[in-house]
Amino acid sequence: MIKRLCFVLACMAAMPAIAASPDTIVRVPAFTLPPSSQLSDAAKAVLLRMQAETAPDLKGDLARQRAFYQTWNDNRLKEMHRRFATVETHRTIGGVGVDVVVPKAGVPTRNARRVLINVHGGAFMWGAGSGALVEAIPVAATMGIKVVTVDYRLTPEHRYPAASEDVVAVYRELLKTYAPQNIAIYGCSAGGVITAQSVAWIRKQHLPRPGAIGTFCGTGASYSGDSAFLAGPITGGAPLPVTSLPDTLPTAYMAGVAASDPVAYPLGSDDEIKAFPPTLMLAGGRDFAVSALTLAHRRLARAGVPSELFLFDGLPHAFFMWPDMPESTEAFEIMARFFDAHLGKAPR
Amino acid sequence: MIKRLCFVLACMAAMPAIAASPDTIVRVPAFTLPPSSQLSDAAKAVLLRMQAETAPDLKGDLARQRAFYQTWNDNRLKEMHRRFATVETHRTIGGVGVDVVVPKAGVPTRNARRVLINVHGGAFMWGAGSGALVEAIPVAATMGIKVVTVDYRLTPEHRYPAASEDVVAVYRELLKTYAPQNIAIYGCSAGGVITAQSVAWIRKQHLPRPGAIGTFCGTGASYSGDSAFLAGPITGGAPLPVTSLPDTLPTAYMAGVAASDPVAYPLGSDDEIKAFPPTLMLAGGRDFAVSALTLAHRRLARAGVPSELFLFDGLPHAFFMWPDMPESTEAFEIMARFFDAHLGKAPR
Repeated sequence: MIKRLCFVLACMAAMPAIAASPDTIVRVPAFTLPPSSQLSDAAKAVLLRMQAETAPDLKGDLARQRAFYQTWNDNRLKEMHRRFATVETHRTIGGVGVDVVVPKAGVPTRNARRVLINVHGGAFMWGAGSGALVEAIPVAATMGIKVVTVDYRLTPEHRYPAASEDVVAVYRELLKTYAPQNIAIYGCSAGGVITAQSVAWIRKQHLPRPGAIGTFCGTGASYSGDSAFLAGPITGGAPLPVTSLPDTLPTAYMAGVAASDPVAYPLGSDDEIKAFPPTLMLAGGRDFAVSALTLAHRRLARAGVPSELFLFDGLPHAFFMWPDMPESTEAFEIMARFFDAHLGKAPR
Repeated sequence: MIKRLCFVLACMAAMPAIAASPDTIVRVPAFTLPPSSQLSDAAKAVLLRMQAETAPDLKGDLARQRAFYQTWNDNRLKEMHRRFATVETHRTIGGVGVDVVVPKAGVPTRNARRVLINVHGGAFMWGAGSGALVEAIPVAATMGIKVVTVDYRLTPEHRYPAASEDVVAVYRELLKTYAPQNIAIYGCSAGGVITAQSVAWIRKQHLPRPGAIGTFCGTGASYSGDSAFLAGPITGGAPLPVTSLPDTLPTAYMAGVAASDPVAYPLGSDDEIKAFPPTLMLAGGRDFAVSALTLAHRRLARAGVPSELFLFDGLPHAFFMWPDMPESTEAFEIMARFFDAHLGKAPR
């Protein structure tokens, strides 16, 4: 009781002005949340498998974190390979390492002049290699298109804007072969953030903007709103130990970069937002990024940018890394449909 | 502890097949949820006013419920009148009572051949009169258009499809003056449900479909998914006393109507979905209807129906009945923009 009171008082002290009123703070009682009634049986089975592969507490031990997620991504890659027939080639484009993924049956004529750039997730710290392929393969296969997934520089060895520079180096090189309106960039989690940041970085370099982007499970903004507080408790995790959110992304990658920097946080800048290409936003309903996406979607729409938002109820962050459920198939189809609708087809 | 165990066991007994696994049921711990960091200060002030006007427990006392919501709607109507300049006229169209709302400055030429039909909310049991005007006035004023809000028959005196019949009677009469593609239908909560049902009812009558619809805070489907369980606890209410959701809407209005009835639950029918006009979905992020809307949006998009989804983080069911916050202004602008984009302009 005393502890609870302290917590509430701590809230009140931490929140500004009107938010300090205890009346606008909701004391959520303990309750039981069944799996979403919208989920397929396959998704419910995947939820169990997700739990069995939840990361142990490796806080601060980067080597073990990277090893854990390497194995985790290797497992997902096996599942992707079982489900999708693609050919992958490691190359260097614009001085940056990439994996190029194409459908085993070849790229159909309709997509011959189009290419997608994938920016993998992994908390800015891991995800190259198998993690990148896990994001590139299903979209290459579902849409029937070439996907170039970028091995951008990771943190803590590197800092912002290293990843933007690497993505844009690949984009700049691809512009020699593809018309800008025929190129899309997409990514999940940290990759969703870097995708949005890359759009602003492209603009800063005075390059033509891409034809479309997809920022999934994260975007070019700090995490805000309810989902940051809900995602832990509703996915079997702990409540946030804070009562207010930082206005910057809590990662070494973005250390020292102000929230007001429009190229680092483009969704906070009207000028950057106005210059965005058509943008697809997609996440699981239990993702901590949901609220950031819903706000970004409103800001883009308000600025007249074609923007679409899809939420998959009952599913957590980055759910579509798990291909063995129809919800993931549907997510890949949404991505393919969106890029098909917004990318050009004319030659360079 | 024993009680908690009983609750969990009750869950397990109530849930089908794989959902019965205790591992997919999340025991959400008690936690403190601050107001969404995305909210304007005005919205935080409105949240306090919402609390002060929360309905007391009037369960089963219909007369007192209706009296309470009459006063509640009268209060909102005063706020709408302070903010928007409109002229309202009570009339009968197609044998059904309606209120016709037009901007005080008149309908601009661009919208002269267009009309919106509003279907008010109120749990199928109340909301006529001031409640209907609260929904019609801001859209009439923001878009600069005539809005006809329908006094459809209420439950428990009447049952499905009485409201669909009344809405379609008005629609049929308006078709004598307006081209169908120039007419939109929209509604919130029960009005969102009836709006979707009316689209199917129009199809059943072999009438041409309207140009666009908006189903806000509810749609033509039962309540499903996480938001049904989250909305109570995260808005200061109690957890749901059940662990699974009915597949029909829990209202006397829909009593005895099967979930498989495609005209009553059109979002569950591929044939009805395919025939939907462009559809706008919108809700507060803390609304119990969020999950139903996100699924409906995916189903419509999958069927190739232009569909848009907007969520307002941190706000509850039917938040835009409260005009004194920029979030409500934004919601009205989204509605106006959507209907403007999708309605025709040619004469009948």
